[in-house]
This record gives sequence, C-alpha cells and structure tokens, in this order.
Amino acid sequence: MYVAVMGYGTVGSGVAALLRKNHELIRKKSRQESLELRYILDLRTFPGDENESLVTNDFNLILNDSEVRIVVETMGGLHPAFEFVSACLAAGKSVVTSNKELVAAKGMELLRIAAENNANFMFEASVGGGIPVLTPIIQCLAANEISEVAGILNGTTNYILTKMFDEGAGFESALAEAQRLGYAERDPSADVDGIDACRKICILADLCFGREVAPDSFYVEGIRNITETDVEYAKALGGVIKLVASAEKKNGGENVAVCVSPAFIRNGSQLANVSDVFNAVLVRGDAVGDTVFYGRGAGKMPTASAVMADVIDCAVSMGETKPYGWSEAPDGYVLPDDEFTSRFFVRAACGADKVKEVFGSVQQVSFEGAPQGETAFVTELTDKASLKKSLADLGEIRSVIRVTDY
Amino acid sequence: MYVAVMGYGTVGSGVAALLRKNHELIRKKSRQESLELRYILDLRTFPGDENESLVTNDFNLILNDSEVRIVVETMGGLHPAFEFVSACLAAGKSVVTSNKELVAAKGMELLRIAAENNANFMFEASVGGGIPVLTPIIQCLAANEISEVAGILNGTTNYILTKMFDEGAGFESALAEAQRLGYAERDPSADVDGIDACRKICILADLCFGREVAPDSFYVEGIRNITETDVEYAKALGGVIKLVASAEKKNGGENVAVCVSPAFIRNGSQLANVSDVFNAVLVRGDAVGDTVFYGRGAGKMPTASAVMADVIDCAVSMGETKPYGWSEAPDGYVLPDDEFTSRFFVRAACGADKVKEVFGSVQQVSFEGAPQGETAFVTELTDKASLKKSLADLGEIRSVIRVTDY
Repeated sequence: MYVAVMGYGTVGSGVAALLRKNHELIRKKSRQESLELRYILDLRTFPGDENESLVTNDFNLILNDSEVRIVVETMGGLHPAFEFVSACLAAGKSVVTSNKELVAAKGMELLRIAAENNANFMFEASVGGGIPVLTPIIQCLAANEISEVAGILNGTTNYILTKMFDEGAGFESALAEAQRLGYAERDPSADVDGIDACRKICILADLCFGREVAPDSFYVEGIRNITETDVEYAKALGGVIKLVASAEKKNGGENVAVCVSPAFIRNGSQLANVSDVFNAVLVRGDAVGDTVFYGRGAGKMPTASAVMADVIDCAVSMGETKPYGWSEAPDGYVLPDDEFTSRFFVRAACGADKVKEVFGSVQQVSFEGAPQGETAFVTELTDKASLKKSLADLGEIRSVIRVTDY
Repeated sequence: MYVAVMGYGTVGSGVAALLRKNHELIRKKSRQESLELRYILDLRTFPGDENESLVTNDFNLILNDSEVRIVVETMGGLHPAFEFVSACLAAGKSVVTSNKELVAAKGMELLRIAAENNANFMFEASVGGGIPVLTPIIQCLAANEISEVAGILNGTTNYILTKMFDEGAGFESALAEAQRLGYAERDPSADVDGIDACRKICILADLCFGREVAPDSFYVEGIRNITETDVEYAKALGGVIKLVASAEKKNGGENVAVCVSPAFIRNGSQLANVSDVFNAVLVRGDAVGDTVFYGRGAGKMPTASAVMADVIDCAVSMGETKPYGWSEAPDGYVLPDDEFTSRFFVRAACGADKVKEVFGSVQQVSFEGAPQGETAFVTELTDKASLKKSLADLGEIRSVIRVTDY
C-alpha cells in the first residue's frame, strides 16, 4: 500500500520521518505487506532532503495513482486543502489531516464524502497535537452521555501565560520570548486571539455532542488583555489563568454553551498544572466522571504520532467507513453569549461598598501591593447579560475573567 | 444481539445500570438493531432488583445460548473466572473483563483462545478503571516506540497518601478512614501492599512492549512503611510520595525494568496533582513524548464505562479479532531487582560527614523539626546492588524511597 503526503512543512516532514524511523512497527500494525511513502506534494523543492525524489508539485499524480490508498494532508489553510482532500475522498482514498481549520469548517462535509466513497477521513492530529483525544472520546467513552468538554488547546498562549505566572513577565515580553523560541508566529494573532483554540473546541464539540458548531457562532477572546496584576490576583485566589476553550451541553442537549476565553483555574485541578506548550483536554461523562488527556499539543513529531496512528487506522479499516456521528445542528443550537453562565472574577474601579450594593456579599480578592482604588471579587453563578447590567453600575471595569469549576 | 454479565457485584451491576441508562446511545454505537442483557450469572439472588429476572446460577445457560455473543466477566479472582472465560471464548463468544488478576495472569492465553475462535477478549477496565488507556496505547500511540509506562494505578493507596500529605495523618488512621468510606477492603493488603498495582503494571507492560511480564517477577513494595516524617521530607524536597508502578525498556528492548514502590514525584509533574482515589498513567513514546491519561481508577460507573466501551467495540468488530501484539518473553527479560536503576531518597542514622564519605556530595534534605541524629539525602543515579552496598556502610537505614523523573 502506498501513502502520499501533501505539504512538506513541519508536520508533513515529521510524518515522513516517523514512517522512516518506525517503519517496520508501523507496517506491521497496519497489517500490510508493504506500506511506503510514494509522493510528497509541495510547490517547493528540497535539494539534498532524504525524500527529495518523492517531491512533486502535481496533485493529479497523487489523485490518479490508484495504488495510493491513503493521503496525508498537512498543508494547512482552507484552500486548496479542501479541494484536494475532497477530490481524494471522492476517488475512494482515505485522508488523514492535522489541519484544524479545514476540519472545523468542512469536517462534516468531508466525512459525508468519505462515507459515500467507502473511505475514511480522520483528524486526530487536529486537536491536541500528539495527545490521543478524539479516538478515546469516540471509542473509549462511547457509552457515556458527555456533558462537557474543555481544555487548554493552544500551546503558544499556554507558554506565554506560564511565563507570566512563573517569571512575572508581561504579555509583550512573554510573547517576544515565545516568538524567539519558534512557539509563536511572527503574526501571532491566530494563537493569542484564540482563533486556533476556537477551531479545536468546535471539533471537540462536534464529536462529543454529535452536532455541528460553527467557529463564528460563539464568544472568542484571546489573552492580550491579561496583565501582571491579573496574574497576582489569580495567585491570591489560589490558582492560575489559562486560555480555556469549553463546550457544555445545556437544556438536555438541545443547546450548547461554547466559549474561548482566559479563565481562572484553581490549583489542584488537573488543568492548573498544564505548563509551557503542553495541552490538556478534560471530558466529563455521566458514567466516567472527569477524565483528562495530557501531552504535547503541537510540534513536529508529536503531531506526526497522531497522524500516523490515523494512517494505521485507515490501513486497518480499509473499505469500511468509521462513523463519527457528526450531524447538522438546528438553528439556535449554540447559545448566545448573553446566556453564557459562569462565575466571574471582576476588577472594578470602585469601593467594596459599591460592589456589595450591586452584587451582595461576594468573595473579595486582594494581595499585598494590589492597585489602589479598585475592588476585586468573584461573582456567584450568573449569566453574561445580568453580569453586564450589574457591571454598568460599578463604573470602570478593569478585568472580567471567568472562573471555572474543573 | 444479547449480552450476559457474570458477577453481579459493584462493577457488574454498574454495567447493567449503564446499559439501561444509555441504552439507545449504546445500541446505536454498537451498530445493532437490538442489544439486550439476557443473563446475569451470580450464586446469590437479588429479590426486588430491577434485573432480578435475569439472574441465574447456571453458567451453561450462557455458554449454550448461541444468541449471547458478548459476555462480560466481572466476578473477579482467577477461578472459576478463567474457566468460564476460556469456555465462552472457545464457543466463539467475545469476552470483556474488568478482572486485572485474570488478565495479568492469563491474558496472553485468553487472547490466543479468542484469536483461534474469531472472537475478542478485551480488558480496558482492568487498568485505570474508567480512564481510556489501553485502547489509546494500542491504537493512538501505535506509531511510537514506547520506552516507558508508569502510573498511579491504585486509588486506595492514593487516597491514603493524599490524606497523609494534606492532613498530616499517619498511615493507620488514613487507612481506617479509607475503610470507613469503602475505598479500602477490611483486609486491605491487595491494595496497600501493591498487589493490585503490580497486576496493572504487568498488563500495561505487556501491551506497551509486547512481551509478557509475570506479576511475581519484579520488586513490589506497598505503602505501609511510609511515615509522617517521610511526608515532611517529601514536602521539603518540593514534591509528594505516590505509589508508583513503572515499566521501562532497557538494553534496546531486550529487557524491561519493572517496579511497584512508593516514589517521590516533584510538584509540577502531572502525576503529583493526582489526588484521592484518582489514577493517572504516563506513557513515554519516541514521537509523542510524555502523554498522561487521568481519571477515576475505580468505582461502579467509571469501571462500567470502560467495560461498555469494550462491549461496543466487540459488537462492532464481531467476527474479526483485534491483535494486541502480546507474546511470550525470553528468559531473563525482566531485569533482576539488583539492576534496577534510579535516584533514591535515603534517611540514615548517621552524620552528614559519613554520607559524604560514602556517597560523595549529594543533595541533603531537611525541614524544621526533622528527627535528630539522622541525615536525609538524595543519591545520584545508581543501581540497587550498589545502593545496598553503600547503605551497609551507613548504619541504620530509616527510609529508602526512589525518586522519579516524570
């Protein structure tokens, strides 16, 4: 059996390297007499690369080679990835991708094309890098009604927040360090503004609850506004601030509340100890309770590990489409932001009396050296519409950060 | 399709309850028109129980009913579980078990019988309760050479150690509390002496490395000897003491070093934050790096969650045996204890000079109120044979606890 890789960047070259390194093990587990890389699609050339001879810029070579039964898509972006992947699936080839943008936007459609052509479309690597999470959710937690899925899904922002917590760095300097180390792009917005985490929580919600969640249908906030002062307050509260992406079933499954935003997590939670570029995903099931999957959420070899697991799965399942149970959602499935319910940490430029007048007796937070002229506190459980109304009565608001119960 | 449950104790009744609660979801994911519980094998009767009418004490009823395609074994113990399970497999029925004693001792043999009869033998629930761990290892990390697997695999001892750390309780009073809450048996030895963790690390090693590790072939030490003083030293060292079961490939896979013993874990490790009855398993792969699976390692519904996932898998895979790659090991595969290598925390009734004379400049540990007349320190990496020799020169030894690098 032959495999093609489309896109010879970090992940694509990792896939080729891993197939070479653990070739015998991978071939055996694929239950194939041979499993070889035949083409690498890329517009660039790679003189001197060990796979130089496999590189082509002609997609049709892959599409029309009937011996290529599995295609790995690691190009990234929506176009031409979507066109290439749909063409491969329509030709009955199975496709494995690490491209979260593609899966979040077009996953349901590509799964349909795969099913119509007796092929598989698999994307374990699109969420949590090397961490096994999608297969465990679909297969190992299959007997559970899942009520919530949440996670630290972006390594770049987690690295930055870890720096801010451990070294007291400000956002800008932590970002600069992340860029220097190659953890953040020169244009870091996809990471720091929460776009990457947004795509991943969509995929998780799609699979956990079986209904499509569109990436533009809920509130997404990145970490640009988190300050050193917020960090100090979080420490005083006994926890950390993480960029948390979450999706929770509401109204018996009729709705889902989805959110990407900075969030307070108490120390002692399995998610609080997730540092640097590591990721973790928490899944809450009615039988299993809380279970957490932790590991490297990005990087060449960890991501290749997840891609190759799917390649093996495709090889073993050849000719039989695995059902993902991901279907269209009715209008209004995703709750509007105003109805999002949580406890919130708030810093307001007013006195404690004013806070008590508006919010009643709430938990106040302080630390030595806290800014003068403000009151910091944690609200009771409230929806955002009510919160906004109450905050309008307090005057200048310096921070609003949700407080999780994980 | 019909299912039978053998053993209507905690786990067996959980399986029946979960099948009832999430019946439609489980049936759909099993891709069956019907999926019903037909028999419950137990010597006891259960007057008034919702499944009373299904209870039988006649194993042959199950064995000879050709419509029963999947049998769940939740009886525990080796006999008659082994005889019943082999008979079911020999009859072409798939078997799912939560019985770690059975799997650790007879897993390879039962997998062989399953394969010969085109059936499946599955045992996700035998390690880590509800936590998805065996399937992720086999399937999601399939492209990795796994070098090490380690974990906190016993909830009872972890509850006791958490009590000792958080509340300063002694071992005996923490054990009594665990017994009062039903976390520990009246005879707690299987848990506190490490026997349960021993069986589980065998199963993990069998699957991670593909070669059989016998439960009596390596060093197993429980937590009875951990004192309040050890706890204080661990805190001073910046970590916790957990009952850690681990298996590490040595000499390029020719050998494996396996151990169950109390171990020091630094704060900040994903394993340090695993509290109370929770479990966690760390798997170290060459591509994925470290990945950790966390959740409820025991209990009625979490364990039922893992059992039912296997039942669904058996239903979907009917007629096709899943390979586990678990084969016999050559003699001498498991390293003798003398060759086990680690850093060790030691408390010796001697002065610091004597320690320096024997061990060179090692890291010393102390805390306010530490016992007089002893020196506590952490050795460099050493094998146990050398350690024993050096310790003999120090005089009375009060504690030896290995120090992990997870």
